[in-house]
Amino acid sequence: MATLKELAALVGGKVVGDEQLEVTRVAPLGAARPGDVTFVASPKHLAGLKGTQASAVILFPGADSGPLPAIVCDNPYLAFAKVLTHLQVRRPAPRGILPGAQVAGSAQLAADVTIHPGCVVGERVCVGAGTILYPNVVIYDDVVIGDDCTLHAGVIVREGCRIGHRVILQPGAIIGSDGFGFAPDGERYFKIPQVGIVEIEDDVEIGSATCVDRAALGVTRIRRGVKIDNLVQIAHNVVVGEDTVIVAQVGIAGSTEIGRHCTFGGQSGTAGHLKIGDHVTVGGRGAVAGHVQSKKIISGTPAIDHQDWLKASLVFAKLPELRREINRLKRQLDELTDKMKES
Amino acid sequence: MATLKELAALVGGKVVGDEQLEVTRVAPLGAARPGDVTFVASPKHLAGLKGTQASAVILFPGADSGPLPAIVCDNPYLAFAKVLTHLQVRRPAPRGILPGAQVAGSAQLAADVTIHPGCVVGERVCVGAGTILYPNVVIYDDVVIGDDCTLHAGVIVREGCRIGHRVILQPGAIIGSDGFGFAPDGERYFKIPQVGIVEIEDDVEIGSATCVDRAALGVTRIRRGVKIDNLVQIAHNVVVGEDTVIVAQVGIAGSTEIGRHCTFGGQSGTAGHLKIGDHVTVGGRGAVAGHVQSKKIISGTPAIDHQDWLKASLVFAKLPELRREINRLKRQLDELTDKMKES
Amino acid sequence: MATLKELAALVGGKVVGDEQLEVTRVAPLGAARPGDVTFVASPKHLAGLKGTQASAVILFPGADSGPLPAIVCDNPYLAFAKVLTHLQVRRPAPRGILPGAQVAGSAQLAADVTIHPGCVVGERVCVGAGTILYPNVVIYDDVVIGDDCTLHAGVIVREGCRIGHRVILQPGAIIGSDGFGFAPDGERYFKIPQVGIVEIEDDVEIGSATCVDRAALGVTRIRRGVKIDNLVQIAHNVVVGEDTVIVAQVGIAGSTEIGRHCTFGGQSGTAGHLKIGDHVTVGGRGAVAGHVQSKKIISGTPAIDHQDWLKASLVFAKLPELRREINRLKRQLDELTDKMKES
Repeated sequence: MATLKELAALVGGKVVGDEQLEVTRVAPLGAARPGDVTFVASPKHLAGLKGTQASAVILFPGADSGPLPAIVCDNPYLAFAKVLTHLQVRRPAPRGILPGAQVAGSAQLAADVTIHPGCVVGERVCVGAGTILYPNVVIYDDVVIGDDCTLHAGVIVREGCRIGHRVILQPGAIIGSDGFGFAPDGERYFKIPQVGIVEIEDDVEIGSATCVDRAALGVTRIRRGVKIDNLVQIAHNVVVGEDTVIVAQVGIAGSTEIGRHCTFGGQSGTAGHLKIGDHVTVGGRGAVAGHVQSKKIISGTPAIDHQDWLKASLVFAKLPELRREINRLKRQLDELTDKMKES
Repeated sequence: MATLKELAALVGGKVVGDEQLEVTRVAPLGAARPGDVTFVASPKHLAGLKGTQASAVILFPGADSGPLPAIVCDNPYLAFAKVLTHLQVRRPAPRGILPGAQVAGSAQLAADVTIHPGCVVGERVCVGAGTILYPNVVIYDDVVIGDDCTLHAGVIVREGCRIGHRVILQPGAIIGSDGFGFAPDGERYFKIPQVGIVEIEDDVEIGSATCVDRAALGVTRIRRGVKIDNLVQIAHNVVVGEDTVIVAQVGIAGSTEIGRHCTFGGQSGTAGHLKIGDHVTVGGRGAVAGHVQSKKIISGTPAIDHQDWLKASLVFAKLPELRREINRLKRQLDELTDKMKES
Repeated sequence: MATLKELAALVGGKVVGDEQLEVTRVAPLGAARPGDVTFVASPKHLAGLKGTQASAVILFPGADSGPLPAIVCDNPYLAFAKVLTHLQVRRPAPRGILPGAQVAGSAQLAADVTIHPGCVVGERVCVGAGTILYPNVVIYDDVVIGDDCTLHAGVIVREGCRIGHRVILQPGAIIGSDGFGFAPDGERYFKIPQVGIVEIEDDVEIGSATCVDRAALGVTRIRRGVKIDNLVQIAHNVVVGEDTVIVAQVGIAGSTEIGRHCTFGGQSGTAGHLKIGDHVTVGGRGAVAGHVQSKKIISGTPAIDHQDWLKASLVFAKLPELRREINRLKRQLDELTDKMKES
């Protein structure tokens, strides 16, 4: 529970109406009930305020909340996230090593970690303060994990990988599995040992069943603030730049380097050994086949300029018609040519 | 083992030949041996009956099984599935909480559950009668699981999610991981807490390593009878309607609502916030970019009418030829225009 | 540590320079330090030798290593893999059944296996000599696993599946989950029991979170030497031929048979019930919709000849221009036709 005054201070906003009003929960316009604070981030949803049962609203500047108390701020969506975090997220109190967890004698665990049952923590592993390992997490030998991390159930981190602070690994994320490397030996393949590691920097989140492969030699690197969704494949020796966002089921092939603050839409992908600049956006399902300069927006297979792709896709749907048109032109032209000859 | 008479009763069919004949196993035409019952669901496979060693056949009406005893019924494929289930599937006897499982004191388990070693069951979890948790399943706090469910090894269900009756979760399925939601905060991203849940209704099956994300606020809902294959991504706040089938590696983006009895082909996907009607079919690899009316069949990226896509794809392969044709026409036309000017 | 002489013998190469020189590690040109051996597999990287700090180089025949001692051999990339394996890969010593592993009484384990904590091994399971099960691996009843296999953490192998020798399963790989089979029963679906198995032959490697479904009836078969990357879906009753390589996020639909020594690029896929010959290459993101003859190289959705696809894709990007060109031609032609009529 918090007063509007407290919440306004939290989000850098201004209260319009009763500052001492207390709210307990955040809820969307339609689902909100008395005691809830709701939010309107854009003018198009403003009309929905009329019927809401919410007790207060987080609102963009210049909007009229009517009789409803409001917190007015420049970025209501961000404010919504902060208020929701403040009101409804509690990090569980540290519980130490719980029965049924197996921690190697040489592992160094901060005093206030929580290691749930079924976890297996290898030799010489370091786990920082406040970090939680949910049940059945497996940490191989020589892994380093920073402070205040959350490793959800079933996460696996293989040998020697390094994880920064405040990193969140959703259930079943797999860090440091072998890269996919084989040297042809006649018709057969000889495994190239993958002796590198994965390094995940601070404030990264990685989705469920997402795989980040260890480098063949050297490091696969996920830089500060990167957010990766579920079922994504990050191959060996990839580098993902700061604050880049990768949506579900994307595949980044080996040794590709992605700049900072890029966005990869769902099910997109890249070939290997590419350089992708900063602030690049790859549309959903886009397949990047070559290097990409900063700030480009691209789509398609292979990916081209997004606007060009949109226009070409519209014509694609009309290809049969276009072909008929060409055939008509051809007939018309041939007739005309014949007539010319006759005359 | 069962007699043809018993099996005919089971599937609503009629025996042609020896009703008391006993069969023990179901096998396809080519692999069947004496004692097996095989099946022919369509006329095109009828010729295969000649060489079969099967002792009996499940057959569609009007077909001639020759000397082979037959069970004739309207839906031989369904009958095959029912007979196979009857002859060869035995649900293991309940075994209780096995050594090496960790069940919280406040969890409420029906008497005849089976909880295998390595399972971790959280506080206030309810598990219904006859449900089996295979090894290393993790159930977070406050989850409710119905009767006669099967949760295969390594399944993870996060806090507060609800699962109906007769639900099957294949190995490594992940239910209730955080949805992928972040509010931009300058160049960085602020995590939007995902405080909703997942609700899975009765008779749903979910494939291996498939992820169903919890709602940001509210509920991600998988309705009765939905069947989802492996490695599928269901994002936060999605609703999947009754009896919809989703094949492997499909991705459904956030807040999209899918109607009942739809079919999504393998590796297809949808953008977010879409409404997709009932009985919609999305072809394999199709990418749905807009709302879809009921009964549409669509394919392509972005998805268009399936027949239109098929025709356009044929022309696509001939695009270089088409361009040459256009250039030829252009030359021919220019020559003609020149001639006209001369004359 | 090894001398160049020893390493040359290992790879079938010839030493140029000091045979007794000892190296301890393999490193790429740029990262190598004194004591390392580096490698140059093609002329285009030869210039990089100038600045390297490596003590020796693995080199292709006819290249000049300057003053640097070299191992000259026909296949430097393969030699690199072999030297890296020799210098830097040690299989851990066998440790038996570690505390916290649960092995059924009827399981038959070779003397020198290693079964880590959290593993659950079912009834009548056989595990061969030298095989390692990392933590939290689950082996259902009646599974057979050969010698010298490595099953990484969280791997699940369901009932009755068979795994050959020297098989590597990366973390979270799922073998033998139910195939996706349902018989329509009015508007609902009736589950077809999946009573077949998966058979994985010798020297196969399977990636993280990759799923290989058990056959409905019979066997899903992964033949000798197949290499499969992460997050791949292999559906029920598929056969993958010897030495075929399948890159990440590929989906092979049910009952498709793939020949030997094929290559599937990332995110590609096939429809079901197809026959794909030997030495077929499917480009990244390619969607195979029909049977494919041996040695074909195909790409696109649906997949066509790779060169045709490349050319058509170039024209695709110019489709709006092409349509404008057609419209211009049409106008020009209509004008000409009108003029003809007038004259």
